[in-house]
Amino acid sequence: MATKEGKSNKLSFQLKTPKGTRDWIGVDMILRESIFSAISEVFKRHGGTQLDTPVFELKEILAGKYGEDSRLIYDLADQGGEDSALRYDLTVPLARWLAMNSSVQHIKRYQIAKVYRRDQPAVAKGRMREFYQCDFDIAGSYDAMIPDAEILRIVVEVFEALGMQDYITIKLNHRKILDGLFGACGVPEDKIRSISSAVDKLDKLPWDQVKLEMEEKGLASEVADKVGEYVKLSGGREILDAIKADELLSANENVKKGAEDMELLFKYLEAFDVLDKVSFDLSLARGLDYYTGLIYEVVTPLSSPEGFAKSQKKSSKSNGDDPNVGVGSIAAGGRYDDLVNMFSKKRQIPCVGISFGVDRIFTIMKQRLEQDAKEGNSTVRASESDVFVMAFGGKGFSGMLVERMSVANQLWKAGIKTEFAQSVKPRLPQQFKLAEAGGIPLAVILGEDELAVGKVKLKELGLPEGHPEKDGYLVSRENLVEEVQKKLNKTTLPIR
Amino acid sequence: MATKEGKSNKLSFQLKTPKGTRDWIGVDMILRESIFSAISEVFKRHGGTQLDTPVFELKEILAGKYGEDSRLIYDLADQGGEDSALRYDLTVPLARWLAMNSSVQHIKRYQIAKVYRRDQPAVAKGRMREFYQCDFDIAGSYDAMIPDAEILRIVVEVFEALGMQDYITIKLNHRKILDGLFGACGVPEDKIRSISSAVDKLDKLPWDQVKLEMEEKGLASEVADKVGEYVKLSGGREILDAIKADELLSANENVKKGAEDMELLFKYLEAFDVLDKVSFDLSLARGLDYYTGLIYEVVTPLSSPEGFAKSQKKSSKSNGDDPNVGVGSIAAGGRYDDLVNMFSKKRQIPCVGISFGVDRIFTIMKQRLEQDAKEGNSTVRASESDVFVMAFGGKGFSGMLVERMSVANQLWKAGIKTEFAQSVKPRLPQQFKLAEAGGIPLAVILGEDELAVGKVKLKELGLPEGHPEKDGYLVSRENLVEEVQKKLNKTTLPIR
Repeated sequence: MATKEGKSNKLSFQLKTPKGTRDWIGVDMILRESIFSAISEVFKRHGGTQLDTPVFELKEILAGKYGEDSRLIYDLADQGGEDSALRYDLTVPLARWLAMNSSVQHIKRYQIAKVYRRDQPAVAKGRMREFYQCDFDIAGSYDAMIPDAEILRIVVEVFEALGMQDYITIKLNHRKILDGLFGACGVPEDKIRSISSAVDKLDKLPWDQVKLEMEEKGLASEVADKVGEYVKLSGGREILDAIKADELLSANENVKKGAEDMELLFKYLEAFDVLDKVSFDLSLARGLDYYTGLIYEVVTPLSSPEGFAKSQKKSSKSNGDDPNVGVGSIAAGGRYDDLVNMFSKKRQIPCVGISFGVDRIFTIMKQRLEQDAKEGNSTVRASESDVFVMAFGGKGFSGMLVERMSVANQLWKAGIKTEFAQSVKPRLPQQFKLAEAGGIPLAVILGEDELAVGKVKLKELGLPEGHPEKDGYLVSRENLVEEVQKKLNKTTLPIR
Repeated sequence: MATKEGKSNKLSFQLKTPKGTRDWIGVDMILRESIFSAISEVFKRHGGTQLDTPVFELKEILAGKYGEDSRLIYDLADQGGEDSALRYDLTVPLARWLAMNSSVQHIKRYQIAKVYRRDQPAVAKGRMREFYQCDFDIAGSYDAMIPDAEILRIVVEVFEALGMQDYITIKLNHRKILDGLFGACGVPEDKIRSISSAVDKLDKLPWDQVKLEMEEKGLASEVADKVGEYVKLSGGREILDAIKADELLSANENVKKGAEDMELLFKYLEAFDVLDKVSFDLSLARGLDYYTGLIYEVVTPLSSPEGFAKSQKKSSKSNGDDPNVGVGSIAAGGRYDDLVNMFSKKRQIPCVGISFGVDRIFTIMKQRLEQDAKEGNSTVRASESDVFVMAFGGKGFSGMLVERMSVANQLWKAGIKTEFAQSVKPRLPQQFKLAEAGGIPLAVILGEDELAVGKVKLKELGLPEGHPEKDGYLVSRENLVEEVQKKLNKTTLPIR
């Protein structure tokens, strides 16, 4: 794109990142890293092994896995090699890896990596073309619903680690119950997936509109109403009891199998102490075709359009975003027992997994941080450095550069995060300003006379007037590391 | 690519990752992560701020930055949007970011991320098409050579953290000295870059061959010989003294400026305690055009073809790799004061930085680990889990699944990495086998009678016969977490 001036000193193109992508730095980056580190700690606690796959896959691997969303896949240019495309999610690469590695019969694998979708971005809501997914999947033949229950336990631990446990609900459903329910109500076999996707919109649209969509898709009004009666149900274990007591449903083979699974699941969720977080929600359908059993989605009040709009000062319209959509679910997944088999006919490895939408979680946590900052409770520092080494002196002051370097070096060797002004003769106020700008908590101040007798001044920055240590105190160089470490244990550190 | 069978149950394409890419998992992944974590800890210690940029950039951003290597850039397909390409390194994205963010005058930024080059892969040597770089750069106007010296201090700390400090040499040179030297010897201005790239091969080729290349590039034999005399010099500070004492060189303005920089550098390197790691090497030239001052490259004995061949049992030819190339340099960088200016005529931000070649470092460390393993000193476990919860019982044994779940849950809540057999009635030997396969150090064993009185058995796995705790001991459930934590503090943990 040529700028108006077009010549001379101007560049002939826009200086920006590609559409739907962004740079991450500073407080955003620290927050995102802290989310990753909390999540991967939980994954490891559950025996997770990290897998890293290439950012692009052969096109044939991705083909036929994503239905109509395949149009969102980024292709690499044909430069005389293999046809490749950027990965769309982390599930298909896992299935490809499992199909390739036939010695692997069981694995709990996790992967935290970027995925790519040529979708309409909505930056304010954290919906980008390049975004992170954090996936945990349990692959292998196990007794029914044990891994499924552990995945839900992981969900609770992750949101506990993020301090969001009080705001989440895990919506549960079972593909077999859903399919059986449709069958029992009289939905024709070939309409089940399309009716299912209409039902999935019940969290965004009122029943009337969903019913209209069903009728447009060719469903008889009375069948739609019958479906409607059931899919409006949501709650705890009592929903399972209602299903089992229902004459129509309990006669259906699919429903029966699904109900047996749910029976076990509720038992295991009790042992794992997560019953209070789940909602058995018969309207949950999930888009992807490959699910074969339990499905789930984690929502918060911000997931809905109203919740999100309320949390935003300015109208979200100003970002060109669809105001009818909230942040959406912040984690989702389910059981997919046949995907690996698509890659290797000899391999049948049942899988169940969860994908955390980190960018959406980030959006929510950032709002909370900004709220905290407004209320003066911010805990995020601009830099992670702990010590600033500075020097001062009178007339003819040398700047003590080599001495500052040597003291910084002493602290680095002890693993302490240290900076100093990178100039030969910095003025003292300038050095304090640099330390302040980084939110650095400690200063080590060198003076020629003190250093001559092996001492430096240690000063905690930002102490209130009148504090007994406001002016700092002298420390011998041999004890400097120890004294700094003592101070740091008492000082607010950046979140991580 | 169709397989021979071509039909029925077979897939119509190869199940693999794209050429020059690979999956990472298991011990490899744990080792790589431990390298990243050691490096980023050093980066943070020096006030580094993490930047994350998109994996692709607008093509115009990358254009004209890499000389003839531009042909190695991966383009994205034209799908009706902007022309984009996968990043080739992390330096150009940094320069683009600095140009875009005009409020940033100073920054120490680091980035650990994958880059992409459509080059001939050499897997055994860690040269891939998708590979990681770990970059640390200091941007901003500072007094001369202070940031440059800190970068070299960082190099030493990184290789100390990796336990490789005894095997590295940092080769140093200065572009101004090199250019001045060529000028003083009579190399014509327009041949300086091409002669420079011939000189750069002196670490791989004997002088005769390098001289031949120079002559082929049109240099007179006696000029080549004069250049040869100088570029064979390498050593410590004495090289600088020799340059200053040399009549021909000391008269050259470029050499004079470079020598002043080197004078300061040696002073600062002494304060930072890294003098013993550097070698002032007049043959070091570095390929990229954008360097303007100090340049450096970190080498190990494995960097050379002979060193690498010696370290490999099988001939490296069997991998189709060029046997004339070693692992190469394992870190490299230099000062580039004009790159940001290429993106924004209004911005002139001097930069100096280093890029660590993690995949090459990985290759070297993995060889060492394998050597250790052969000698029975392996410290890497297959899994990171710390506890396996199991149960046993006599005839009519229920399997105690819910009880195992509940105990696992108790440990998870305390942050302890715990697994259990995901089946209803696992046999005891099967459970021990699972724990063993993962190298898990502790077992918590449930028996119905013990659990009835609130006790479980804690057992350290792999203890020698006759050890007093070989059979484990009973612990009450209230004290279980505390006892496990005590044990873990005494047990070998995986490297990280």
